[in-house]
Formats: sequence, C-alpha cells, structure tokens
Amino acid sequence: MSRESAFIDTLRALAADPAARGLMDDAAVLDVAGVKLVLTHDMIVEGVHYRPDDPPADVAWKLVAVNLSDLAAKGARPTGALLGYALGDGVWDTAFAKGLGTALGAFGLPLLGGDTVAMPQGAPRALGLTALGTTDVAPGRSGAAPGDLLWVSGTIGDAGAGLDLLNAGRADPAALIERYRNPRPRLEAGQRLAPLVTAMMDVSDGLLIDAARMAHASGCSVEIEIESIPLSEALMTERGDDREARLDAATAGDDYELLFAAAPDQSPTLVALADEVGLPLTRVGRFEHGAGLTLWDAAGPVPLPARIGFEHGR
Amino acid sequence: MSRESAFIDTLRALAADPAARGLMDDAAVLDVAGVKLVLTHDMIVEGVHYRPDDPPADVAWKLVAVNLSDLAAKGARPTGALLGYALGDGVWDTAFAKGLGTALGAFGLPLLGGDTVAMPQGAPRALGLTALGTTDVAPGRSGAAPGDLLWVSGTIGDAGAGLDLLNAGRADPAALIERYRNPRPRLEAGQRLAPLVTAMMDVSDGLLIDAARMAHASGCSVEIEIESIPLSEALMTERGDDREARLDAATAGDDYELLFAAAPDQSPTLVALADEVGLPLTRVGRFEHGAGLTLWDAAGPVPLPARIGFEHGR
Repeated sequence: MSRESAFIDTLRALAADPAARGLMDDAAVLDVAGVKLVLTHDMIVEGVHYRPDDPPADVAWKLVAVNLSDLAAKGARPTGALLGYALGDGVWDTAFAKGLGTALGAFGLPLLGGDTVAMPQGAPRALGLTALGTTDVAPGRSGAAPGDLLWVSGTIGDAGAGLDLLNAGRADPAALIERYRNPRPRLEAGQRLAPLVTAMMDVSDGLLIDAARMAHASGCSVEIEIESIPLSEALMTERGDDREARLDAATAGDDYELLFAAAPDQSPTLVALADEVGLPLTRVGRFEHGAGLTLWDAAGPVPLPARIGFEHGR
Repeated sequence: MSRESAFIDTLRALAADPAARGLMDDAAVLDVAGVKLVLTHDMIVEGVHYRPDDPPADVAWKLVAVNLSDLAAKGARPTGALLGYALGDGVWDTAFAKGLGTALGAFGLPLLGGDTVAMPQGAPRALGLTALGTTDVAPGRSGAAPGDLLWVSGTIGDAGAGLDLLNAGRADPAALIERYRNPRPRLEAGQRLAPLVTAMMDVSDGLLIDAARMAHASGCSVEIEIESIPLSEALMTERGDDREARLDAATAGDDYELLFAAAPDQSPTLVALADEVGLPLTRVGRFEHGAGLTLWDAAGPVPLPARIGFEHGR
C-alpha cells in the first residue's frame, strides 16, 4: 500500500458522515434542506500537476476543469467556487487571474471566495479550488452490479500523450497538447447521464485504475476489451493503435472523461444521448461477480501492465 | 497597493455574485433552498503560517481553527470540511492525521472529502481546508454605522507574543505559545452574537488593520481607545501594558478573536452574554462619520504605528 493510500485510510476514520461517501467518491454529497449539494476540492501543484512553463491561463483553466469534472461525475450543475491561491510573481499572477476569468466565464461559475497566501521564495506553488454544485441524483462509484456494462465518454490517452510531447520539447500535434492543458469537464453529459447510470466517476488517474476502483467500490470484477477503448485520430496518427498504444492510453491519466456503469437495457438510450450531446459514449467492458480487473482483446486475455495508472496524490 | 491587494482586486471582478460579498468578507454566504450556507477556504503554508518545527498535530489544529474562526464570524454552526493535503514524510503525515482527528472531534466536524497531492521533494507544504456551516443570520463586515461601538472578544496579542517566543527559542510562558499553536475559534460566541451585531469579522491579521477594514467596508471611520484593548495576564507579565506593548498586541495578528460592531443600546445584553458564554467581550472603540482609523489614549490622540497589521497573504 502506498504512502498516499495509508494516509487516506487514516483520514477515512474521520469521514464517517454519510455525506463523505467514505472518501471513496469524487465529491461529497450533502443534503441541505432537501437539495443535494455536491462539494469537491482538488489541488494542483507546480511540477507535479502542471509544468512550470505551462501558460498561467492554462493552469487556471486546468484548476477549474479538474474540479468541475468531479461535479460532472455526480451529475451536478456548478454553482460556485472558492480559490486557494499561492502568490507568485506579479506577471504570472495577472495572467493566471485573466485565465481564471476565462475559465469561470466559460462555465458560468461565480467565484465566491477563498484565500490568497504568500509562499516562501522559490517554492513550487500549490493551488486549490473548491467547487460546489447541486443535483437531484448523485451517482456514486459503488453502484455497479454484475451484468452492467462499462462505458466511457470521449477519447482516452490524448492528454497523457500531450504531456509526453511537451516533455520531449514538441509543440504538436496541438490537439493532444490542448487535451493536456485544457481538459473539458463533461458537465452536460454528466447531468444527462446521472439518472441513467448505476455508477459514475471521472477518469483522472487512468482508465484502468479508475475502472478497477469502481469495480472494487461496487464489489464486482470488471473486464475491459482493450480494442474498444476509444482513441482519437490524432492519437492513432501519433502512436498507432496496437496493444501497447492502447495500454499506454488506458494508463495515462488526465483524461477527465466520464466513466460509468449502466444496465444493458440502457444501451439504446445511451447511444441516442451521445448523439444529442455531441460526445461519443463507448462501451468498453462489463462488470461480473468476483473482484479485480481483467483485460481482453480478440485473441483472449491480455496481461495487466505493471502500472495501471496513477495513485492518489498525482 | 501591495501585490496581494492588486491580485485580489483583479479577482473581485470575477466575484460579482452576491454570495461572494465582493470578496470583502471572511466567508461566502450562499442561499440554498432558504438555508444560509456559509463557506470558507483558508490555506496555511509551512514557513509562512506555521513554523517547520511546529508539532504536526498543532498544524492540523490551526488549519481547522482558522477556518472555523471564519465561520464563527458569520455566526455559523459548522457542518463539514474538505481537506487539501500535500503529503510530506510518513511520520509527519501520520501525526498530522491524528491531530486532525482531535481537532475535528473537538468541534464535531465531519471530514467530507478533499484531495491529497504529492509535492516536489523538499518543497514547503501548503495545506488547505474548506469549511462549511449554516446560519440564520450572517453578519457582514459592512454593516457598522456611525455611533456603533466596536467590541472584541477574549484577549489580543497573545498569539503574536507566542510566535516571538518560539522564534527566540523559548518554550514559555506556555499560555502564549498555546494561543499561537492552538487558536480557539469563537463558535458559540459567534452564534450568539450574530443576531445582536451590525458587523462582525475575526481578527486574523491584527486588531488595528482588521478594525480599519471593517470601518472601510462600512463607510465609517473608527476610533480605538488603546487602553481598553484587552490583554491577558500572561502577556502583561511578559511585555507590560504600556503604549508600545498595546500597539504591539494590536498589530500582531493570529488572535482569531471576534471583532464586532453593535449599537450602544446592545451593551447590557453583550455584557450579560459575555458571562453566559464565559468569554470576555470588551468595548474598544467607536464608529463615526468619515473614514480612517484613529487611536486614542487618556492623554489624547496616539500616532498610528508604521505597520498596523499583516496584509492578505499572511
């Protein structure tokens, strides 16, 4: 068990309130006068979650987007945000604030408050955002049942490839870098999906690890057909679509797509919904009795890669 | 204008929602189905808000207490918290988690969620907490009127003196160090005061600067009688109670006492309330027409010190 997992297990004892969902979920869901209030707090750290040379406006976008992605996974309509900001140099701060305005404006999200702190000279900066929203139905991670199908929105692996490109000093394909720097939280899809699914979460640490977490929380096993994992044209052009490319994509993280479980009889509705919201929804696997994650392709079982995604703390 | 103030002015444009209170308040106040939901997010940074050698359990206590102090200033009953945690070494993390349990338990506050991140090796850590609560009446900073009296709870300057002692390598008087490491949010007093006051905030950056902020937000001037600033026995024994000691106390910050304005006819009620909640409430000044902060003692006006408190960002 990693250091992060051990720490979170310790915290879990402090999170006995049902609203905390045992810290197993993307967000807390609190009942306030009959309204389901969804609350999430994500941090991003310079040199860990973003590159020191990422444009400050993109860092602001990412901070907003990763939090809204958690709300999307609960089907929530966002209502506001609180910012925890570590001041840097004035030019960076000004560009960040401008980017924050762009991001909040894009999602119609008011800034409600927060805190601004100084950091010791030269320290990498940690930025936090708390986002809140409301919903009627807030699917958890733990509701998948044997026989349910596993679906994912959009395409997988683009952001991870974008990060690799930046780390290699490349500036294109721009579409992949854009997916890394400007993830799009799937708010509309999440709101539409919430009443149709048995479990939902966002893919932040990698498709495989996040699917394994959903299966574990639901007391099921999950089988993923790696040939059905949706890859973008840009990614296939860059990396191909063989087994290695697919496993790279499914363990890369930073996708911020929706991963969800639904009963088989929901499939026609989901296919129609994909058209309506203009976002691919792809069936990638199936929940079964038992425990664990297995991978398959047309030739049969595929060995799990040594690393199936990122641990908490990324 | 400081860099921090300039940044916050930029953010203010993103905070047009009435719930944000123009970022002039300790907390956001959101109406959810007729319930006033109070939300605050404060960060503390190693080497800035706490000393690297402060015991981890005390750092956890402070993180909880400074956020609950903001809720206290809005008269709120706390309902939960989200933690933004930067992992350090495992021993420190474990001790922090234990201290967090103590602090949350002391205030009956469930942990609802949050995020745990890795930091680059050796980086000073930034920790954030979002606290939420509910209230019927949420006094702002801007409601003081000319003629209102300025009051403060508890005693002022103890925490600042405690920090000075630690910085000088001293371990006593323990009472002062305790006030620095284990501030007590004035939740019960805040809840009882909220319906009686015209404005309320907590004293985090120094009595003088925070009083000046309340006056500015309220469109008034404020006069403070420095001889009435309440000092503890421990502080007077350590520092005396002459003009210099009083000005030091009033500019030291980290008090986490309640500062509030009330009409003169509330005074008997406030005196009785102090007895009921077992916390001194002391009249220290008066709001008048005009703008600015003036200090007085028995001999007449007292010049403002060069620094009246800490800027945002501390």
